[in-house]
Amino acid sequence: MLRNYSVRTDLALEEKERFESDDVEVQGVVLEEDYDEEQELRVTRVEIRTENGAKAMGKPVGTYLTLETPNLAIPDDESHMNIAERLCGYIRELVRKNAGNKEGDLSVLVVGLGNREVTPDALGPYVADHLSVTRHIVKEYGKYAMGLEHADMISAIVPGVMGQTGMESTEIVRGIVKETHPDMVIAVDALAARNSKRLNRTVQIADTGIHPGSGIGNNRSGLTAESLGVPVIGIGVPTVVDAATIVNDTMENFIAALESSDSLKGVGEVLRSYNAGEKYEFVKELIAPHLNGMFVTPKDVDEMIHQISHTISEALNMLFTGYERQGSGTSQQA
Amino acid sequence: MLRNYSVRTDLALEEKERFESDDVEVQGVVLEEDYDEEQELRVTRVEIRTENGAKAMGKPVGTYLTLETPNLAIPDDESHMNIAERLCGYIRELVRKNAGNKEGDLSVLVVGLGNREVTPDALGPYVADHLSVTRHIVKEYGKYAMGLEHADMISAIVPGVMGQTGMESTEIVRGIVKETHPDMVIAVDALAARNSKRLNRTVQIADTGIHPGSGIGNNRSGLTAESLGVPVIGIGVPTVVDAATIVNDTMENFIAALESSDSLKGVGEVLRSYNAGEKYEFVKELIAPHLNGMFVTPKDVDEMIHQISHTISEALNMLFTGYERQGSGTSQQA
Amino acid sequence: MLRNYSVRTDLALEEKERFESDDVEVQGVVLEEDYDEEQELRVTRVEIRTENGAKAMGKPVGTYLTLETPNLAIPDDESHMNIAERLCGYIRELVRKNAGNKEGDLSVLVVGLGNREVTPDALGPYVADHLSVTRHIVKEYGKYAMGLEHADMISAIVPGVMGQTGMESTEIVRGIVKETHPDMVIAVDALAARNSKRLNRTVQIADTGIHPGSGIGNNRSGLTAESLGVPVIGIGVPTVVDAATIVNDTMENFIAALESSDSLKGVGEVLRSYNAGEKYEFVKELIAPHLNGMFVTPKDVDEMIHQISHTISEALNMLFTGYERQGSGTSQQA
Amino acid sequence: MLRNYSVRTDLALEEKERFESDDVEVQGVVLEEDYDEEQELRVTRVEIRTENGAKAMGKPVGTYLTLETPNLAIPDDESHMNIAERLCGYIRELVRKNAGNKEGDLSVLVVGLGNREVTPDALGPYVADHLSVTRHIVKEYGKYAMGLEHADMISAIVPGVMGQTGMESTEIVRGIVKETHPDMVIAVDALAARNSKRLNRTVQIADTGIHPGSGIGNNRSGLTAESLGVPVIGIGVPTVVDAATIVNDTMENFIAALESSDSLKGVGEVLRSYNAGEKYEFVKELIAPHLNGMFVTPKDVDEMIHQISHTISEALNMLFTGYERQGSGTSQQA
Repeated sequence: MLRNYSVRTDLALEEKERFESDDVEVQGVVLEEDYDEEQELRVTRVEIRTENGAKAMGKPVGTYLTLETPNLAIPDDESHMNIAERLCGYIRELVRKNAGNKEGDLSVLVVGLGNREVTPDALGPYVADHLSVTRHIVKEYGKYAMGLEHADMISAIVPGVMGQTGMESTEIVRGIVKETHPDMVIAVDALAARNSKRLNRTVQIADTGIHPGSGIGNNRSGLTAESLGVPVIGIGVPTVVDAATIVNDTMENFIAALESSDSLKGVGEVLRSYNAGEKYEFVKELIAPHLNGMFVTPKDVDEMIHQISHTISEALNMLFTGYERQGSGTSQQA
Repeated sequence: MLRNYSVRTDLALEEKERFESDDVEVQGVVLEEDYDEEQELRVTRVEIRTENGAKAMGKPVGTYLTLETPNLAIPDDESHMNIAERLCGYIRELVRKNAGNKEGDLSVLVVGLGNREVTPDALGPYVADHLSVTRHIVKEYGKYAMGLEHADMISAIVPGVMGQTGMESTEIVRGIVKETHPDMVIAVDALAARNSKRLNRTVQIADTGIHPGSGIGNNRSGLTAESLGVPVIGIGVPTVVDAATIVNDTMENFIAALESSDSLKGVGEVLRSYNAGEKYEFVKELIAPHLNGMFVTPKDVDEMIHQISHTISEALNMLFTGYERQGSGTSQQA
Repeated sequence: MLRNYSVRTDLALEEKERFESDDVEVQGVVLEEDYDEEQELRVTRVEIRTENGAKAMGKPVGTYLTLETPNLAIPDDESHMNIAERLCGYIRELVRKNAGNKEGDLSVLVVGLGNREVTPDALGPYVADHLSVTRHIVKEYGKYAMGLEHADMISAIVPGVMGQTGMESTEIVRGIVKETHPDMVIAVDALAARNSKRLNRTVQIADTGIHPGSGIGNNRSGLTAESLGVPVIGIGVPTVVDAATIVNDTMENFIAALESSDSLKGVGEVLRSYNAGEKYEFVKELIAPHLNGMFVTPKDVDEMIHQISHTISEALNMLFTGYERQGSGTSQQA
Repeated sequence: MLRNYSVRTDLALEEKERFESDDVEVQGVVLEEDYDEEQELRVTRVEIRTENGAKAMGKPVGTYLTLETPNLAIPDDESHMNIAERLCGYIRELVRKNAGNKEGDLSVLVVGLGNREVTPDALGPYVADHLSVTRHIVKEYGKYAMGLEHADMISAIVPGVMGQTGMESTEIVRGIVKETHPDMVIAVDALAARNSKRLNRTVQIADTGIHPGSGIGNNRSGLTAESLGVPVIGIGVPTVVDAATIVNDTMENFIAALESSDSLKGVGEVLRSYNAGEKYEFVKELIAPHLNGMFVTPKDVDEMIHQISHTISEALNMLFTGYERQGSGTSQQA
């Protein structure tokens, strides 16, 4: 109802849902969904294929894979491994798609975006912490000396946030990319979701990078192929909801409740007679300005961030060091 | 308006405000306020003197000192020192009041409550980190060997939270108190405020300890003279607001807006005709259950927590190691 | 040669070696050794059975199991799991032996000794960090509600070091034990080894607890059945060598070299003519007093501590949550 | 005596001492010393002016200022401020000397070298943590909007170590320098000293940057004007001694003792008859290969690193934000 009051989301999935509720088909956008009942794991693939589709979705042309499961933040070794293997498969798909004609080993810079000092924003740094970096070893000893046939050169950086460095993450990463010439960047970031139900149970993998205004700390300039000069795979997990979003959601519920309420039917009727613009004005007044710059996060966010970052770094380690449980290779593509 | 929908607050000040808006005077409760314009620093003293007052306020008999200033989280050395000296004075007042007949040096256990791993809940642990502990030195060498006439025996513990220890903080602290026999406990904790404007600019010092349900992690049993067997001074700083509170606040604003709106006057009239119970039912439905266990906090919470914890530990270090800027002793009592 | 110049070791194994080199059999002490060639894993069992044996060994009556393997600090998932399972088996043996007549579920307090802020001393705290604590859940919901037949009540504490708390670890832990009544304490600590070759590749498990003077920070009073009132299993990993030990070792080598050297045979002859006391005087002068309070540790100590603490907490989690890879149960006892 | 057995030192001061003991004057090298008795603070200025001097010293042409005081790691606010002001003055001298013709505000990138995870190597990262970065604010709002006449643009980066990033620190910093164009780099690093008495009481400031092989982690390529393209001021604090150095020192003492000993005079005479090469062979054998990659550090290294990093960041904040206690400006130059 208050759909015109646009609340930012970093998830293509949530952007898509916006349209679905209107039963509108968006041209140039293909949606596929796959649900694994046993693992309670839903994978949604949004392909934005044309500039028209991009315009309608407010997101650039590219592939957006979203994996949702209540098990993401659950400290169970078995589901942890299952999810890591699934993630590994999806990341591999986008990595290969964007590696161009390059055959053989890749050189990849993994960027852990976010602020290590603020728990829900520490996802990117924690993923970088657990990564097996290999670039220095391959450069010094060669892959054959390592006894490996397959040896991607993995490097990693935690650029910090602007309040710590005085620099945009994009400036730092662009400088390092120009100096060390990776074939590709994989950027990991904590995101803001629109729906609090999605927190800590969703991973989005996209080959369009990380965009301006994404993330908790509101990156002012994105990490994209355009800004860095190499393809950028973005891996994002919603770990917070903007405080303003929570308030907006409740307002929507409230107005819907008024409209459908038996006892307050009169109110609903009055409200229904006003247009979206009028309703928007109400909401704008109600979202106190001091809520800007505030976010909502679960109390056990520390355990969730530790668990999820571990799963993502495991997926990356599997992908780049070639380790994988036998027989699982083919089952990974949904 | 939705006052009957009770939202928990750890601040006596906010409890008092609840009544003020009704212009009710609460018997057995004395309120004094002092405002230092130059330092933009407001000190409120709530004394709950009788059981009736305690019942009305929903807080135990005791003294609650609240210091509010926008400078609390500002990284300015000068105001940092001023605030630390003020805090030192107020803590000293409550320490002396509760030291009983004990003259001379005190033995004090400082407890840093909260979860070091969740940024807005790390206040207590950070205060303990920066504390000058002296108990082991005084015990081994004596205060004269240290060249001091005045040497309180300060010890400190960070008990962790139940998800980390499997034990209640109260159990851990009670065991340590029984074993090491301090004269008094000072417990520092991050609190939940009702009003987001109060975040990171308020310190409450109370001689009633920390109560069940206080704090971000919802301590299930309090740290009080009753549970520990020695007086407990509680020092609390609101660093989060419950997500449910933010939503509730907005609802209040919304209903007030409907009531006063020209264009939607009809809605307001309908709403006004319903009683508090009916309105409460609406709100209860709207506060999604998944918001329980979520909190709202500012994006720069890391800097604020570092700054404020440093100020509090400085105040405690001043108090117990006897260091103080000359001439500031008398000006500290409001 | 300089054997009379006693260098402290926390490892019973090293104490035993002291005698072996003299081909002396120590009465009341039984030594068994087992070597698993495939896993490069040596397990030594020292049983001190009599007070005479205890006196000779300078360690109390009890069982000391030492597991040595170069793979301990190697970040390989497969050997990590193998070692964790072996450790789990040995810890279980000592836990059961010390559980007395108690059948069924145990209540165990795990104590992570050491200083989280000094990398090689952070082993104990890191083990506690990764532990699955269950006491609060079992207490609140019961083990059947958890869907488990077997549910030990695990609690954990990181007491900190005296410079942070002003209290002895023993005081803190004794208070908590008296308050929460565990059946047993398991204390994990980083140790000082006598031989730098043993660093980060050795785990000692003993049912005699942690003794005064053990550990990096030189615990002044031990964690033992005597001091805590319940059995104490100590798990220790040598992560540093005292600087004085390194120097002493080199002196021994030097003097041995002088004695055997062709070109400097004269020196050796002269030295041989002096007695142990005279030699000891030399060494004492040479070990500069400022080396006291210094330790030697590898540059990659951070990775080693992370890896080993993870393996130990995995072993404890396996033991207490009943998780274990099938078929591995019987192979664990050496 | 064992002078030919060269032990690496990062301190020009220690390099100089090597010669002094031989009463050799090194051409092209000027040494000035200044001792402040009241503050127990010794400042040594080594100016290497010619390539000959550089060759003799094994260090490049430039100015090396060394500040030594037992108070460096002592947690006393008064001496902390005094030392910070002295450091501020010396850093300013080298900054101005290397700023070339540039007048007015500078743009400076501070690099915190070292490994945050290994306590004695965390000095650089901790300094960066406490720095007031301003580049993003000046760039966005301008210095006049900040109400300042003097506003250097300060940025900061913690590049991590090669085992974490797979990249050389030099590659990372060079990329960032090329992208963000600072006028100068200030690199802060923990160093290895030759003499354990110098640990945590010495700061070296040099306008020659940080050189290959310096630091605890053995930077393989340096941070110098040559490698980065802008002047580099290096600030180093010795926080460890290589284990091999400790052993070597003791050997020297031992041989000296043998030579001067009455009772063992014979040994000394024998030793004296052998040449340096022969003695070197002994020592080489005695320094066990497993000591390579090990370092010696004090047990309270955590407190020292916190204290010293705070003092250095305070000095940099004073310098770049213009804050300074009145009247102290002129007294800073020795």
